[in-house]
Amino acid sequence: MVSKNIVKLIKSLSLKKYREKEGLFLVEGNKMVTEALCSNYKVAKIIATHEFLLTTKTDTSYAVEIIEASQEEIRKASLLKNPQNSMALCEIPENENIPENINNGLTLYLDGIQDPGNLGTIIRTCDWFNIGFILCSPDTADIYSPKVVQASMGSIFRTKLFYIPAWQVLKKESFKNVHIFGAFPDGNNIYTEYLPENTIMFVGNEGNGIRKEVEPFINKRIMIPCFKNNGSAESLNVAVAAGIICSEFKRRFSYDSYSK
Amino acid sequence: MVSKNIVKLIKSLSLKKYREKEGLFLVEGNKMVTEALCSNYKVAKIIATHEFLLTTKTDTSYAVEIIEASQEEIRKASLLKNPQNSMALCEIPENENIPENINNGLTLYLDGIQDPGNLGTIIRTCDWFNIGFILCSPDTADIYSPKVVQASMGSIFRTKLFYIPAWQVLKKESFKNVHIFGAFPDGNNIYTEYLPENTIMFVGNEGNGIRKEVEPFINKRIMIPCFKNNGSAESLNVAVAAGIICSEFKRRFSYDSYSK
Repeated sequence: MVSKNIVKLIKSLSLKKYREKEGLFLVEGNKMVTEALCSNYKVAKIIATHEFLLTTKTDTSYAVEIIEASQEEIRKASLLKNPQNSMALCEIPENENIPENINNGLTLYLDGIQDPGNLGTIIRTCDWFNIGFILCSPDTADIYSPKVVQASMGSIFRTKLFYIPAWQVLKKESFKNVHIFGAFPDGNNIYTEYLPENTIMFVGNEGNGIRKEVEPFINKRIMIPCFKNNGSAESLNVAVAAGIICSEFKRRFSYDSYSK
Repeated sequence: MVSKNIVKLIKSLSLKKYREKEGLFLVEGNKMVTEALCSNYKVAKIIATHEFLLTTKTDTSYAVEIIEASQEEIRKASLLKNPQNSMALCEIPENENIPENINNGLTLYLDGIQDPGNLGTIIRTCDWFNIGFILCSPDTADIYSPKVVQASMGSIFRTKLFYIPAWQVLKKESFKNVHIFGAFPDGNNIYTEYLPENTIMFVGNEGNGIRKEVEPFINKRIMIPCFKNNGSAESLNVAVAAGIICSEFKRRFSYDSYSK
């Protein structure tokens, strides 16, 4: 039975101030709930149908509390249009320090990504390309927003995000020998440019790109060339651009003997 | 002044049956409205603030009707959370036949893409990579859905979509010499595979991939390799995957002298 207070709590978690107050974030969908249970995250509550609890192969005893609910109760509590049979409330972990070995490969720095769908999709992409850490400016969308969690398709449980101002990254002793790249419309062609393995790649906000103050610290500006001669194409979606950038870096290191 | 009937008409265009009945689709945002005016599409109505009409550099006389509206009226009529100063109602063009020269380069076949955001993003990506035609299964999201239009960022005005069952594509005489590729989780590594220029690339539905009936007609199955050894990463977002596929094909033809 799902009490009114639980419904109220769940609904409140769409806003960051309530997520911070409660120290909780919402996970919806059977696959995502299963991933939460298998992850290092603490699961405070599972709200699920009898059928889900009966048939899931995952050990639900990892959850502190299990609330059995009807399909209708889940529908009422859910933030989704088409909810499934389960949802979970997970604890927001304590802030961690950036590990020193972060400069061991490609790292993204997201400079003010606003759209939660874009952020979630980028996290999912990084998971696929085995990029375990993502750096974000403090004004980037919140990883624990329900839309980010949803778009990440569970990848938030396997990828660490650090909200840190760019200047703090750039002055870090351990990043001294790291290449600082940035995506700019007037950059060099990514397909023909040398791409070193230990790189922090700056990717900018959907509308405004990388902020002015950061530009002087970028060693190399790159871009994905437009294949339209008349310049009519607008731009790429930032999550698609980030995907192509990750693909191109990772392909070079692993499959391209010519351009190393 | 925006009448109640116009507001009702605009709201109704979120549903396909009303778009078909009225022969109209909705375009929102100043940049998109400007793109509509500059395109070959017929603009039936512009609803815009006095300020927009005064300051726009685009010839608004291309629109059949111009309705001056207050910011508040636009907010009431809009389907967006944060509407701008203008919206347009454009005419849905007549169905065209697939041009015969479609096999002159890379073409995507979208097999049941459901999410309008994904479809719009793929259209935007194709525009960037100069892929002028997209083939879609009839159950793919509708190009004129407001969310597709929005996510395409104006690229719908420059990219032609054809809704056509896969079997009709596969039996077409003019596609006889075209390579039929498909994206499958168990496909060959796209980074090391030979990618011919005249290819129709099948990309499947978000959850279910390419439908079973089409599989036998795929000449070559390819995939974007996962860089995680433990296989924990789930999958890529379909719009990101399509972006990486387009990038990899186009890069080969233009920049990679080794793999030709």
